[in-house]
Amino acid sequence: METVKLGILGMGTVASGLVKIIELNNSKISDSIGKKLCVEKVLVRNPNKKRNSGLPQNIYTTDAYEIINDPDIQIIVELIGGIDPAREHIKAALKNKKHIVTANKALIAACGGELEELAAINGAKLMYEASVAGGIPIINTISENLAANEFDQITGIVNGTTNYILTQMTENGLEYEQALKEAQRLGFAESDPSSDVEGDDAVYKIAILASIAFGQEIKIKDIPKEGITKISREDINYARELDYRIKLLASAVKKGNEIEIGVHPTFIPAKHPLSTVKNEFNAVFLKGNAVGELMFYGKGAGSLPTGSAILGDIISILKGGKTGCHKFKKIEKYKITYNAFKPYYIRFEVIDKPGVLGKIADAFGANGISLASVMQRQKNGDNIAPLVFITHAAYRKNIDAALKEINKFECVAKIADIIMVENFE
Amino acid sequence: METVKLGILGMGTVASGLVKIIELNNSKISDSIGKKLCVEKVLVRNPNKKRNSGLPQNIYTTDAYEIINDPDIQIIVELIGGIDPAREHIKAALKNKKHIVTANKALIAACGGELEELAAINGAKLMYEASVAGGIPIINTISENLAANEFDQITGIVNGTTNYILTQMTENGLEYEQALKEAQRLGFAESDPSSDVEGDDAVYKIAILASIAFGQEIKIKDIPKEGITKISREDINYARELDYRIKLLASAVKKGNEIEIGVHPTFIPAKHPLSTVKNEFNAVFLKGNAVGELMFYGKGAGSLPTGSAILGDIISILKGGKTGCHKFKKIEKYKITYNAFKPYYIRFEVIDKPGVLGKIADAFGANGISLASVMQRQKNGDNIAPLVFITHAAYRKNIDAALKEINKFECVAKIADIIMVENFE
Repeated sequence: METVKLGILGMGTVASGLVKIIELNNSKISDSIGKKLCVEKVLVRNPNKKRNSGLPQNIYTTDAYEIINDPDIQIIVELIGGIDPAREHIKAALKNKKHIVTANKALIAACGGELEELAAINGAKLMYEASVAGGIPIINTISENLAANEFDQITGIVNGTTNYILTQMTENGLEYEQALKEAQRLGFAESDPSSDVEGDDAVYKIAILASIAFGQEIKIKDIPKEGITKISREDINYARELDYRIKLLASAVKKGNEIEIGVHPTFIPAKHPLSTVKNEFNAVFLKGNAVGELMFYGKGAGSLPTGSAILGDIISILKGGKTGCHKFKKIEKYKITYNAFKPYYIRFEVIDKPGVLGKIADAFGANGISLASVMQRQKNGDNIAPLVFITHAAYRKNIDAALKEINKFECVAKIADIIMVENFE
Repeated sequence: METVKLGILGMGTVASGLVKIIELNNSKISDSIGKKLCVEKVLVRNPNKKRNSGLPQNIYTTDAYEIINDPDIQIIVELIGGIDPAREHIKAALKNKKHIVTANKALIAACGGELEELAAINGAKLMYEASVAGGIPIINTISENLAANEFDQITGIVNGTTNYILTQMTENGLEYEQALKEAQRLGFAESDPSSDVEGDDAVYKIAILASIAFGQEIKIKDIPKEGITKISREDINYARELDYRIKLLASAVKKGNEIEIGVHPTFIPAKHPLSTVKNEFNAVFLKGNAVGELMFYGKGAGSLPTGSAILGDIISILKGGKTGCHKFKKIEKYKITYNAFKPYYIRFEVIDKPGVLGKIADAFGANGISLASVMQRQKNGDNIAPLVFITHAAYRKNIDAALKEINKFECVAKIADIIMVENFE
């Protein structure tokens, strides 16, 4: 049986998972492609470091070009992460007609179009299923199995760290800081969690998903984002009472010739399938004009799930065909906007005296915002009471205009939080 | 741009959906394959019938061989359903080296292996994504994107009719007969609903899914089945009280060198993702040894979702590569069994007098069955009271032995229902 030689750039968690699956499932994999996979060379920083990969010590190199220029290596798996030097390595490898499989979301979101073009010129393939939602097969599914659809919406819970934190706050009553610490302890959050909790990671992923689904390269700079650091347990509890859950949604919705795209903490109905996505799990929900509503649910990170996605790409490449062709198109069919017309949840802290509710409601009304529901509670102490509204659908600029006015009221101690509501209607 | 000519066998709902999507999304489809799709000929019973397909009248033929022998037709879509004459048409077409796309679950479940072999011999492709779970891309996903996984479990809600009925019974308090009538009115159930409600349809689908996932052809005759006709609103209500939902699950689980496969109404935890799959929606849940738990959710039937799956297959064929190769393998790696060790829900109607509970509990104990919970309620009238048990995990044969004994008790009016419990542990 023919052997296919792989080079791997980087030997972190995901690479270990990949190596482990190749060993564990090698007969299943060979069955599928009629060939045997073999890891030939691995780029590392320190070749003398003791590793548990089971690979022979002489497989490691500190020189990427030993891999990129090796005529025996057909496929290179890039697992360094970040833009440089990953980009330069991939470009050099594509010029050498190596096929590339990568899990690098930052790179694909930033340079997917450029790299795909280079791959096409060189008759090589560039695959990146693992860059979004770990083990969930979403990129190839959108671009292959669902290719006959025009998409109306793609909305995902694509960051496991924030979903873990929000789930713990919802189900176990943890405060944000406690839940973050727990996530760090379990390895679901990094010691510097900012890329996850501030929404950047989700921005990369929705940039990739939306670019592919709508057939137009969408730049990360055009995607507004909001993290979860300001979400309090109070917001979580009000959401529950109102039969909602708070999730960090990365969403792109087509409306006529516009695409509304953004990453935001969002109230979603408790009975929507995305509400059942808990802890470190991810899910991608989409609407196609033929297939209707679909949801894909699974593990969005971890060495084995991500390794599964990488191997799926390797198998696709080896099965041949026009897999992984040009998906990031530099066209301007749609205007990229963020002008959502949605209901909002708004929580105030107000001085507990007669007339406050009416005054605030009037200010909303004067700005064309009508109210769907209101919850007024007993004061907390210090004569300050929470007051919670859910508006009917409105533009954020009108909400902001009303809030600017309301913020001047003496009876309003604080505008504690504003969170979008998505009813999927 | 090159034109690819399609022949369609059958002009029912799904064919109409297919034709509609080809027209509606033709630029998206052409973009994806660099070719234009064109419906060349369609097999019908009555060519003079007025149709709203938008196709010219001279496209229709009553002679399948006008399509099978047409040298210009590259791909034939089989939408007749059932075994014959679909099988003969497909075999003749494969011998003519036509690629085949079919939605025919009965045929693929019965003859998938035979047809794949014939396709391979003739260098043609046989694709059948649409045969299971309508628009949900599950077959190609298992055999391509997830091909690096050994699977431990594949469990689906793969019949929309029964899921609609069970959902209506659960959420709107309908009795089985009412819910069935409503399903028929909405087109979710046929006038003769037996293939759906008796579980046959789900058997075809799990036969296909399990054959592909486990790499071994599994025959429908080896798959035990139980429909939903005996499920009463009482069972539904007890399930809710115990924080479960009742779903018709089609399930295949690998245990060592055995595969436990069957179709049964099942108690599943209310918080499991499959519990959120409502009405006509389908979902497939699977566990791979690399990817972990995955769930795919979407519309399991309907002209446009099924058309989406058919077009996905057509696009795959036209992109080339080793798509759709031999998946039904005639090997005997696993023993096909049904020997589940699971908890059971058992509902009795008993004469309301002291000592009944103890007597029944003793009979369970004597057969090695321990009880997880019991619910005893007030009598219904006639001195008959419901008595509900959930056992700990047990073999069905031990449950049956205990029930045989219990059935002889004078105090037991009726063993009203026995339903398996799946906790996904």
